[in-house]
Amino acid sequence: MEQLKELQEKAKLIRKWCLVSTTEAESGHPTSCLSAADITAVLFDKYFTYDLANPLNLYNDRFVLSKGHAAPLLYTLFGIAGAYALEELKTLRKLGSRFEGHPVPSFVYTEAATGSLGQGLSVGAGLALIAKRENLGNKTYVLLGDGELAEGQVWEAANFASHYDLNNLIAILDINRLAQSQETMFGHHIEKYISRFKAFDFEVIAIDGHNLNEIDSAFDRAIKNNTGKPCAIIAKTFKGKGISFLENKDGWHGKALKKDELQKALAELGNIDDNLRFNPKKPAQTKLPENVSAEIQIEMSFEKNKEYATREIFGQALIKAGEKNKDIYALDGDVKNSTFTEYFQKSFPDRFVECYIAEQNMVSAAAGFSRLGKIPFVATFAAFLTRAADQIRMARVSEANIKFIGSHVGVSIGEDGPSQMGLEDISLFGTIPDAVVLQPSDAASTAKLVQLMVSHKGFVYMRTLRPKTAILYDNAEEFKIGGSKILRQSENDQLTVAATGITVFEAIKAADELQKENINIRVVDCYSISPIDSETLKKCLEATKKKIIITVEDHFKHGGMGDFAAAAVSDINGRIEKMAVSKISQSGTKDELLDDAGISARHIIARLKELIN
Amino acid sequence: MEQLKELQEKAKLIRKWCLVSTTEAESGHPTSCLSAADITAVLFDKYFTYDLANPLNLYNDRFVLSKGHAAPLLYTLFGIAGAYALEELKTLRKLGSRFEGHPVPSFVYTEAATGSLGQGLSVGAGLALIAKRENLGNKTYVLLGDGELAEGQVWEAANFASHYDLNNLIAILDINRLAQSQETMFGHHIEKYISRFKAFDFEVIAIDGHNLNEIDSAFDRAIKNNTGKPCAIIAKTFKGKGISFLENKDGWHGKALKKDELQKALAELGNIDDNLRFNPKKPAQTKLPENVSAEIQIEMSFEKNKEYATREIFGQALIKAGEKNKDIYALDGDVKNSTFTEYFQKSFPDRFVECYIAEQNMVSAAAGFSRLGKIPFVATFAAFLTRAADQIRMARVSEANIKFIGSHVGVSIGEDGPSQMGLEDISLFGTIPDAVVLQPSDAASTAKLVQLMVSHKGFVYMRTLRPKTAILYDNAEEFKIGGSKILRQSENDQLTVAATGITVFEAIKAADELQKENINIRVVDCYSISPIDSETLKKCLEATKKKIIITVEDHFKHGGMGDFAAAAVSDINGRIEKMAVSKISQSGTKDELLDDAGISARHIIARLKELIN
Repeated sequence: MEQLKELQEKAKLIRKWCLVSTTEAESGHPTSCLSAADITAVLFDKYFTYDLANPLNLYNDRFVLSKGHAAPLLYTLFGIAGAYALEELKTLRKLGSRFEGHPVPSFVYTEAATGSLGQGLSVGAGLALIAKRENLGNKTYVLLGDGELAEGQVWEAANFASHYDLNNLIAILDINRLAQSQETMFGHHIEKYISRFKAFDFEVIAIDGHNLNEIDSAFDRAIKNNTGKPCAIIAKTFKGKGISFLENKDGWHGKALKKDELQKALAELGNIDDNLRFNPKKPAQTKLPENVSAEIQIEMSFEKNKEYATREIFGQALIKAGEKNKDIYALDGDVKNSTFTEYFQKSFPDRFVECYIAEQNMVSAAAGFSRLGKIPFVATFAAFLTRAADQIRMARVSEANIKFIGSHVGVSIGEDGPSQMGLEDISLFGTIPDAVVLQPSDAASTAKLVQLMVSHKGFVYMRTLRPKTAILYDNAEEFKIGGSKILRQSENDQLTVAATGITVFEAIKAADELQKENINIRVVDCYSISPIDSETLKKCLEATKKKIIITVEDHFKHGGMGDFAAAAVSDINGRIEKMAVSKISQSGTKDELLDDAGISARHIIARLKELIN
Repeated sequence: MEQLKELQEKAKLIRKWCLVSTTEAESGHPTSCLSAADITAVLFDKYFTYDLANPLNLYNDRFVLSKGHAAPLLYTLFGIAGAYALEELKTLRKLGSRFEGHPVPSFVYTEAATGSLGQGLSVGAGLALIAKRENLGNKTYVLLGDGELAEGQVWEAANFASHYDLNNLIAILDINRLAQSQETMFGHHIEKYISRFKAFDFEVIAIDGHNLNEIDSAFDRAIKNNTGKPCAIIAKTFKGKGISFLENKDGWHGKALKKDELQKALAELGNIDDNLRFNPKKPAQTKLPENVSAEIQIEMSFEKNKEYATREIFGQALIKAGEKNKDIYALDGDVKNSTFTEYFQKSFPDRFVECYIAEQNMVSAAAGFSRLGKIPFVATFAAFLTRAADQIRMARVSEANIKFIGSHVGVSIGEDGPSQMGLEDISLFGTIPDAVVLQPSDAASTAKLVQLMVSHKGFVYMRTLRPKTAILYDNAEEFKIGGSKILRQSENDQLTVAATGITVFEAIKAADELQKENINIRVVDCYSISPIDSETLKKCLEATKKKIIITVEDHFKHGGMGDFAAAAVSDINGRIEKMAVSKISQSGTKDELLDDAGISARHIIARLKELIN
């Protein structure tokens, strides 16, 4: 009884600081915090096991705030747990504060940046899967709003969680009825959520989300859960709960109280002891991510006269990487026999995760893996990485260390047609700050670029090709991020053709044809697309007769390698002439389509002659 | 009985041509066609109502092939229906053929380009919603594979379909157990699909997908469906059904038979009459999309000394557009009070569709609207349009006429932080061939750009701003796609600053500051980002002392307006200096964040002084 009373007071303290901080900020989503104040108060007061000094302790429970706009709730919970002095919350949403409008890693207890809805359950599933495979014995809690349950990704995550028997995952659904602009699709029809989560094979516990006893029983049952299933606590709640003029009222989404409204609200809450604290149990053990040195060497040998598909060599190289670094995981979306992550699966089944055809969940789960110190390689067709563009964006805000592989790039895939062609992928990844974008053209460079992917901390994207290509490089050739290779040059080059991937071979073919006519050109393989090798490109501009670099790429014209090249040489005299795909392609053979797209050797020669005459 | 026999023969004829065409092409997915041959044979033979001469007849039933890799099945069905001579199918997957590897609009019976999985039910829901609102009385059939049911978008579509009571929508689930690289998550556990679709409020009919009588009863029941719910026919099938060495066998996904294998397969099928035909009933009426002239005028008046948010003016302008063109629809993802499509909703509730927080379904549904001659405006935060990047990509392959509105662009949104900032959106849309990208900076230009959006056929994307901005233009000022406005110029400009949206005001501020120091610069408002006004930019380069254009944009550095500008002037002497956002931003005020991102007036002045000294 005494305990219940104290818990009520702590829930009030949460409410107080969610209101005070947003009023101070003059913006934010206080009512979205209030609906979940009671349920999280019980969680943090009684069940949450956490080592505040070591947020990365692998034995910590995990709390993912999927409804990221309730950020002040997250901050308040950890504040009351003793992570910092609550007064600091008054810096909420101010420049330089670690308390941003939506959670980001500057608040170190943030498991994942959220704020784009419907991603948290996937991150949580990623955290829980690693915990399960490594027998960490902890629990992962994900707090979701009801509005975000409309996002399909939630159901991808639900399938994933039940398929992988993540009985260490507890989804807490804050069904507060009101979304941003109107009532949610299902309002307070809790049965709609119960039937859906049951159908997706969750253990479901439906409760009154403001009844502390019901909440307590629910957590008790969810934590003891021996069904082998993930658990969903479906809590019927009220937005703005606890303040009469906010509770269950329209028009209060995303609005901070004015100063006088705040006073009224605080008066309703009554006197609350600011010194009340949660005292989370610390896990019995401490284990931090092992930070295994990511510097590795990959040695592979290729026969000079054979052809190899870079996608297949990637698969083989990933085994080598996996042998040397046990934190490497591979995730694939039911195309492992096309991306060749199936090789990794065969070698390391415990570090392979089949994600089925659900790319969004795959990327967000990988962000969860990264949070626990893993190095996830996420692979699918480059075209289908666009399916997860928003999850990629948010994983970058989370500062996740993910390696992306996009196979089947460009029109060179041939007969399958435009739906399967990755022609936006350089643009997608290239736009993201600090993301490295690579594209090998042959087997030898593929092996070395995989090595670089592991060694580099942060986002790296590598494009791989469907068709086989000839060997260009020695097995021992060295590559670097920001590097390039000059493949043809002479003392009297007319201009430079900078290519990447499949177009390197078109450029070489063009150079060899032109040489028969005594026209020399320089050919550069820009295997590092971002950062691009500006030093070499500038030297090329300076050294050639015409101050022109033709860039040729099997990618749409805007946002590709050509734009990186142009930016890299913009401060010197010279000019970039972009050759790229500028229309929706079609079915045909590789060579027909390269020609149809205007990026074949024939087109390079024609354009070049126009430029030098 | 006789009828059953003939139906069996027709199903064999379908099988024959799916096998023959893929063997001829030496690639494709014959086994994925065979599992659905029986169910589609019954549909086309007995139930499908269609006017072959008028694929766009609004009264036609609709058949969406969500599992796009079964394209030969789609082609064969319409071939046997008499749309063309079956022999032409031997051009499958060859350059120039209308029979591409996955369906595209060159085959005119294609309701939507597919091949990226999990999108068809959304397109179908879009078609069905319009049919319902316009009382067309037809049915929309969507054939889905089981592998693609892992895509979250399917469940967004399912929610949408049941929420809007689309009892004219019939999903046909071809549960053939095998996906590309392994068994699907649920294999032949049909009950997993039954429970899921029931939970999502579908009327569910589970059948043996190779039993013609069961299939027939299922369609009969689905068509008579008076439950008010959408219907799912869940068919247990076998991949490769009908050919002993393919049926239910691993390793046959996406493989054409070799010539000798084909002979063996055809021998198993036995003699089939190539002249068998479906005779689809024609709808009683013919009505084509009215092709309402899209040329409209929008007249609005603004007060010179007031500030307006472009997002709000967009909402007002859309009402004006909606008054003049009754084919305009608006779709929003629960942010209509932020994007201001709520104005349109209030004026035209029958042409507004609340899509809740499910952006993927929203975009694909809009592609369905477009197929029926509507002009859908799809609106959400620019950041959240990335959620639908793949659907946007595919809608473009479908040649859909969609207008996209992305609000809350850039760091100028302020306190909400990076998750809510649209900083990749120019890159996303700019990369898509022929997509027009616009950004108004004030109220007057917003109204006129909405007018241009309606008038232009094809993809148009417009960015809108969260904060209010001053009026720059007269109410009567004219704008054009590919245009720009020079806002400051003199006889002795040092260089040009080209800006767009919020940065136009920073550029003006910089110019006014510099003028106090007797430094003149030219300021251009690039409201048309793609195509960009290359003529004006070139003239600026020629006219200014330094041959430099500084581009300033509230967007990430790569893939933005600066890259369009660089490409536009690449063939003349001069240089583009890009100023843009190059890191993940944070919470803060609009002005703090513009400055923190290095795109404020102060930074423009500093950079400019470096360049001219």
